[in-house]
Amino acid sequence: MSTFKVVFTPSGIRGDIKEGTDVLSAARELGADVASLCGGNGLCTRCKVKLSTGSFPKHQIESQTQHLSPITSAERERISEADLEQGYRLSCSAKIQGDIVIDVPAESQTHQQVIRKDATVLDIENKPAVKLITVDVEEPDLNSPTGDLERLKDAIEFETSLTDLSIETHLLRDLQPALRKGKWTVTVAIYENQRIIGIWSGKQEDAYGLAVDMGSTTIAGHLCNLATGEVLASHGIMNPQIRFGEDLMSRVSYSMMNPGGDLKMTAAIREGINHLVDQLLIEANTSPRPDDKPVTKDLLLDATFVGNPVMHHIFLGIDPVELGGAPFALATQASMTLPARDLDLHLAAGAQVYLPPCIAGHVGADAAAVVLSEAPYKNDAMTLIIDVGTNAEIILGNKKKLVAASSPTGPAFEGAQIHNGQRAAPGAIERVRIDPETLEPRYKVIGVDLWSDDPGFDEAIGETGVTGICGSGIIEAIATMYLAGIVTTDGVINGEKASISARIVNDGKTWAYKMVASKNDDSDINSARSETGVLITQNDIRAIQLAKGTLYASVQLLMDKIHVKKIEQIRFAGAFGAHIDPKYAMLLGMIPDCPLDQVQSVGNAAGTGARIALTNLAGRREIENEVLRMEKIETATEASFQDYFVNAMAIPHKIDTFEHLSQVVFLPAKEESSSDSPRLRRRRRSSRGGKPNISR
Amino acid sequence: MSTFKVVFTPSGIRGDIKEGTDVLSAARELGADVASLCGGNGLCTRCKVKLSTGSFPKHQIESQTQHLSPITSAERERISEADLEQGYRLSCSAKIQGDIVIDVPAESQTHQQVIRKDATVLDIENKPAVKLITVDVEEPDLNSPTGDLERLKDAIEFETSLTDLSIETHLLRDLQPALRKGKWTVTVAIYENQRIIGIWSGKQEDAYGLAVDMGSTTIAGHLCNLATGEVLASHGIMNPQIRFGEDLMSRVSYSMMNPGGDLKMTAAIREGINHLVDQLLIEANTSPRPDDKPVTKDLLLDATFVGNPVMHHIFLGIDPVELGGAPFALATQASMTLPARDLDLHLAAGAQVYLPPCIAGHVGADAAAVVLSEAPYKNDAMTLIIDVGTNAEIILGNKKKLVAASSPTGPAFEGAQIHNGQRAAPGAIERVRIDPETLEPRYKVIGVDLWSDDPGFDEAIGETGVTGICGSGIIEAIATMYLAGIVTTDGVINGEKASISARIVNDGKTWAYKMVASKNDDSDINSARSETGVLITQNDIRAIQLAKGTLYASVQLLMDKIHVKKIEQIRFAGAFGAHIDPKYAMLLGMIPDCPLDQVQSVGNAAGTGARIALTNLAGRREIENEVLRMEKIETATEASFQDYFVNAMAIPHKIDTFEHLSQVVFLPAKEESSSDSPRLRRRRRSSRGGKPNISR
Repeated sequence: MSTFKVVFTPSGIRGDIKEGTDVLSAARELGADVASLCGGNGLCTRCKVKLSTGSFPKHQIESQTQHLSPITSAERERISEADLEQGYRLSCSAKIQGDIVIDVPAESQTHQQVIRKDATVLDIENKPAVKLITVDVEEPDLNSPTGDLERLKDAIEFETSLTDLSIETHLLRDLQPALRKGKWTVTVAIYENQRIIGIWSGKQEDAYGLAVDMGSTTIAGHLCNLATGEVLASHGIMNPQIRFGEDLMSRVSYSMMNPGGDLKMTAAIREGINHLVDQLLIEANTSPRPDDKPVTKDLLLDATFVGNPVMHHIFLGIDPVELGGAPFALATQASMTLPARDLDLHLAAGAQVYLPPCIAGHVGADAAAVVLSEAPYKNDAMTLIIDVGTNAEIILGNKKKLVAASSPTGPAFEGAQIHNGQRAAPGAIERVRIDPETLEPRYKVIGVDLWSDDPGFDEAIGETGVTGICGSGIIEAIATMYLAGIVTTDGVINGEKASISARIVNDGKTWAYKMVASKNDDSDINSARSETGVLITQNDIRAIQLAKGTLYASVQLLMDKIHVKKIEQIRFAGAFGAHIDPKYAMLLGMIPDCPLDQVQSVGNAAGTGARIALTNLAGRREIENEVLRMEKIETATEASFQDYFVNAMAIPHKIDTFEHLSQVVFLPAKEESSSDSPRLRRRRRSSRGGKPNISR
Repeated sequence: MSTFKVVFTPSGIRGDIKEGTDVLSAARELGADVASLCGGNGLCTRCKVKLSTGSFPKHQIESQTQHLSPITSAERERISEADLEQGYRLSCSAKIQGDIVIDVPAESQTHQQVIRKDATVLDIENKPAVKLITVDVEEPDLNSPTGDLERLKDAIEFETSLTDLSIETHLLRDLQPALRKGKWTVTVAIYENQRIIGIWSGKQEDAYGLAVDMGSTTIAGHLCNLATGEVLASHGIMNPQIRFGEDLMSRVSYSMMNPGGDLKMTAAIREGINHLVDQLLIEANTSPRPDDKPVTKDLLLDATFVGNPVMHHIFLGIDPVELGGAPFALATQASMTLPARDLDLHLAAGAQVYLPPCIAGHVGADAAAVVLSEAPYKNDAMTLIIDVGTNAEIILGNKKKLVAASSPTGPAFEGAQIHNGQRAAPGAIERVRIDPETLEPRYKVIGVDLWSDDPGFDEAIGETGVTGICGSGIIEAIATMYLAGIVTTDGVINGEKASISARIVNDGKTWAYKMVASKNDDSDINSARSETGVLITQNDIRAIQLAKGTLYASVQLLMDKIHVKKIEQIRFAGAFGAHIDPKYAMLLGMIPDCPLDQVQSVGNAAGTGARIALTNLAGRREIENEVLRMEKIETATEASFQDYFVNAMAIPHKIDTFEHLSQVVFLPAKEESSSDSPRLRRRRRSSRGGKPNISR
């Protein structure tokens, strides 16, 4: 059977795919991001993709169409005629019959699912940087020849007491027609009480803003009404920089190896954001709202952007090369306020952009936004905030003092460097229980609301089956393997258990735990099988031990710095934190002891911080001051790090005890499965009493 | 004989020209600006023009070349081989043989002569808005992770005590490489003690600036070393807006009639200025200087621009349409400081632009620059400043108070609306004497340093002959006609004088004075003849009476406003003022009585003001404050204007006497001709004593 070249855009992921493979399977095989909720059964339409015709000459488009199998009846039922004509297909139905480029629309990207979380309702005092003021301006008079702008400023001063306002150059052109059209009544937009950035004839009541969280993988934006603070649309796109490198360091390398490469990445992120703005406007204008006023680009007057230092620098047009090596010097650490046009953003002509300060070379404006969102500096409770990515950003403290550090945990928590690891996407194992007697696993898979031993699970997961294990899955897997005695406190898979279960399999010099058998596996494991199977290897456990040991040791260093013995609350920021169960994280020894009901996921706190900065000018000054006050710790150069790290490698820890875990019962039993996915939840089981079985 | 289409660029002037006409004659026929000092004898090379090939396909260029007569030996002698190959020709030698586009290079434009006056040496304290500071910056350290920018600002603060500096966005990109290349020593350019606008590795000692006077017809620029204030180059170009209308009001009309027309004019002026900058750089880098450092665009960090309100608005991208009618509302009156890139100027990326305030709807930033240059607000003497253009701007006062007005004199003083009027260009009569007995005239022509009755005059003026009479010529003509009794105090040409001289000729219901006979005139006037002749008509005198009456009445109104009876000094600003002889201006009743040695031409004072603003930051604040303090008078609405005007129509005046004229002898006699042109000079003849003959 022949193979064909398949390219997925915008990720740029490509590879050879066997003839007749459906596009969804091809995407999974190559690691391209295509969502599917129904398991590839042609039901959910989440996997809709588009035949990319953009780069082909017109006469080749038709032949391209023939590189996919004919449109099925399922597709005719679920895709509109217009969309079919434009080349939309269900990726689970269309089969590859020739070389082809497939465009994955933003709404069909799996990360969409994670990032397109509707914005939580914030209790932010709505005092944005942009004020709309409607004034009546004195008409010009031959005998007192002042300029229209000067009379406008007089009127503004009369209304607001604001003086010494500057004005965007391009508005000078709009000023005279607006005054005359509005019969000397105009509305002006004033930025930070200093600068006129918009002018309209007559009364104008609405102005809009943008809060954007620029992640390494995804870019999420909220479009807000500045007058009310209301979020009108939220949308996420893949970071188009992915084509230059999956992770940040590979992008920094790209810039080092390719002169001018940083400029390409700058152009890519700005283009992506302009595309995001278009999507947000479509969404805001198509979703029902109390008023029917259209949201237009020229009313987008303010925008806040948060991101890690590499994203922050590339977005600002700064080569990130210095962030690639010690001493990781930021070009600038301070907050930035600048015209949107300096960044080639297609907002209102006078729109302004704000970026919170970076905290340090590895702790960016996104971490500052998390701090603004969680405001530990207003809190008495000793708070630990962790944002897990390729690095974990750690903030510790309370109103007295805050310390910050970046912990080089590596990407293991994100499912990378794990034998069957993958990103949190449909098909990935996210929850794991293991029976300590039989060592049989039960698991849940993203996209299916059943445990693996529930009736109907096999039908629900469909042909694709289990594709791998994600970050939260691997944490629970190892924690429960430890609970079941499969893994020792040193992190070794105990080969002796092979006598109890065929799931403990020899893997060269070490052992592995076969959670899901592969289809061509001829062992007698009695469970659903998947294409590749899911094996937890000794290397996986080492990778997770290194990551969690690094994180834990870093937290301990920060605790030393401010002489703290006990953490009173823990906040997980970011997508990763939204998926893990705190008690398994603690059982694994990722985080120090803390009341479990005080361990919370705060979701996309960076995005929330961006929204606060957008709708509350005082919040900008607040975070700028707090970042200045904050002490930054470089964990790598601290003498005690190595000792802390060695002890923290053990599961859960060589020395430290976890008092609050003793109130928790870890249940492999059925009853736990009756509840929903524990994402974004905390549970308190102290009422159940009893000893935890972690003391084995 | 056939005719051909001839187009002159950049003026856009076009018309049909007879085969075999030389290009210089064609230019004069159509009114295009081509200089010639030698009278078209192939000697001076001032008339060098270029065959425009830019808009032709390559294969047509050769045929274009054949649309001019073959290159003459005079041209081979005077034009370099390289220039000949590029299509340069002497316009007096090349004859038209087909349709053709001729480019008149800036250096061959006649106005060049007037505007390319070398900058006078100013006694300005050299404290420009741009400061260059060289600092040593602390290196980044892993354990105190501040940004490079923050450490740079610390170093600047240590050196200069300046805090809270902002920075141009694009410099963020240059910062890190510059610091590392300079081994942590960098030079920054700081604008107005507020903003970092340039950065260089190591030591950088030179920064340059631009002072530009944007006139309706010509744009003159000076390139200055900001560190020393020295003028390195001065250059003038034709205002490329001329193709949209010769005078300001026709350009305002163009904008009214053509939607988007103002944007075209804005683009034209900005392009023209970019071209001027290129020329200035070439001149600065080719003329010998003490140091050999090249002046580059990226070192052009600051620029000041002055111009009348229409030019000011169009340059800023503001539609000038409101300036076309009452109440002549300015979009903005205040001074402007803005980034050069907002105006599409190709200077250094961070370059800034400053424009002084406008005084009123008809009294622009150029008038403010004149005030800054002459500084009457520092003077005890009661000073009258007049800048004659299509309107005359008038400033009157001293350190106690200044008043300003625009006087709608019309363009008569510039030679427009005059029968044989023309701009001050070679071939134009500029000085006139008339023998009161014989009524025979003597005159001087621009470009020829002889009086018309000097031996050799006919040879010097050559074939072209006298082409017309310019503004200063018409003033002397009418004043001396009045002295000779040809014109009465009411401004009527006395037909009875026809009996004395054949030069008094009947012109329908009125009479005219035939200063130069035309070639086909068969009367027996014994003088040089020219193609068209030069006739001073009754209408000419009426036009000048209207203009000078308006000016005089406006001055009187201002004198009333500040209760002043006597003017102590008069300053003529601008090109017009550089050409007139004060005593004839007073004799005509253009200006009020004043000691004649206190009447001075101050040349391009607007350009000088622009240079002061460029090299002295305090000067900017000074003129801004003075303009605020200044009282603006709208002469048209003042009740007493009409009476003043009627009296001022008489020559020299119906009521007012001119005491200081009584000390002057007006000499038609030969001895006056021994001196040079009186341009830019004052003369005192009181030692000669005797009554002036104006009391006739």
